[in-house]
Amino acid sequence: MSEKISNVVIRRLPRYYRYLSELASEDIQKVSSLKMSKDMGLNASQIRRDLNCFGGFGQQGYGYSVDKLRKEIAHILGLDKHYSVIIVGAGSIGNALVGYENFKRSGFEINAIFDNDPKKIGTKVSDKTVLPVSDLEKYAEAHKVDIAFICTPKECAQRTADYLVSLGVCAIWNFAPVNVLARKGVCVENVHLSDSLYVLSYMYSNR
Amino acid sequence: MSEKISNVVIRRLPRYYRYLSELASEDIQKVSSLKMSKDMGLNASQIRRDLNCFGGFGQQGYGYSVDKLRKEIAHILGLDKHYSVIIVGAGSIGNALVGYENFKRSGFEINAIFDNDPKKIGTKVSDKTVLPVSDLEKYAEAHKVDIAFICTPKECAQRTADYLVSLGVCAIWNFAPVNVLARKGVCVENVHLSDSLYVLSYMYSNR
Repeated sequence: MSEKISNVVIRRLPRYYRYLSELASEDIQKVSSLKMSKDMGLNASQIRRDLNCFGGFGQQGYGYSVDKLRKEIAHILGLDKHYSVIIVGAGSIGNALVGYENFKRSGFEINAIFDNDPKKIGTKVSDKTVLPVSDLEKYAEAHKVDIAFICTPKECAQRTADYLVSLGVCAIWNFAPVNVLARKGVCVENVHLSDSLYVLSYMYSNR
Repeated sequence: MSEKISNVVIRRLPRYYRYLSELASEDIQKVSSLKMSKDMGLNASQIRRDLNCFGGFGQQGYGYSVDKLRKEIAHILGLDKHYSVIIVGAGSIGNALVGYENFKRSGFEINAIFDNDPKKIGTKVSDKTVLPVSDLEKYAEAHKVDIAFICTPKECAQRTADYLVSLGVCAIWNFAPVNVLARKGVCVENVHLSDSLYVLSYMYSNR
């Protein structure tokens, strides 16, 4: 079923998931598309269309079961699985991600962090010892790596991605401020933090 | 002119800006909507429509002047100004943001970082000494604060935002994993890093 879901809908799913998780944490058991629409600032008919993409959990006059819908979206997003994660780049962003508790709770377990700076190698970041990038090949042979977070400087991001892919890594979350590319079959999400800051500066300058 | 630009177009502007900055760094002086379309994975007629929103810099058969268009987008986004920034929360994300050189280059100068943890107050993060949150009021009286980055735990994010707004701060970039709300006239961008990771886990699970 999920193959048919459009990219735009997929990008809205994490928002639904967050929203439903909030409701669940408040012990709310059902929700109408109208309430979702008001709370989330989305069009109610769009919400119904989106949720119909994966089976339609709504019942006329009842609304959606928060728990069922949340679990289904988690399943579609692959959040009911566990992922083994490594980080390349023990700079400030890499170090921040190592310590981010929420990832582990959502099934993303950070198992190792690598850097090529002799001053960083061997130091501790949270409870992880920074390993040399030269150990990556050996590490990837011995351990399953589902996802790599790239936190290197911009200049080495593509080279790092290429190397990771050559070692069999198939999913990359890239924080370097450049679009990393990879061959078909490798999943890449490029995070551009500044985009959000620039939207904020637009709003602030035009308020 | 910029008042008429829709929110969806605004959210695409940082992407155009990044793309045009890349072209400029490669000394490319003009670009067609067709090339932009191919490189950016956007529809060419949508690009033309977007860029027409702010004046239409294209010439039939010539394309767009990279430099002019980049400058105009920078101007619309407010990136030709300087912003005085403070950070509240000297945890891993706050510390990472303090050290992020790109912000300063784009006009966002981080001038102070605050926390309420006695173990953090007085310590150095990059070249900044962590100040107590109790100094915020005094600080805001003595210094212009354009933007505050909220990097507190989820539980204190809304309270922190309310307090900052009461001190006159009108723009908030929130990294706590919760939607912070503010009264009309205050600009808020809530960053939900996990959304991008969840899209990646969707792609990876369905590859």
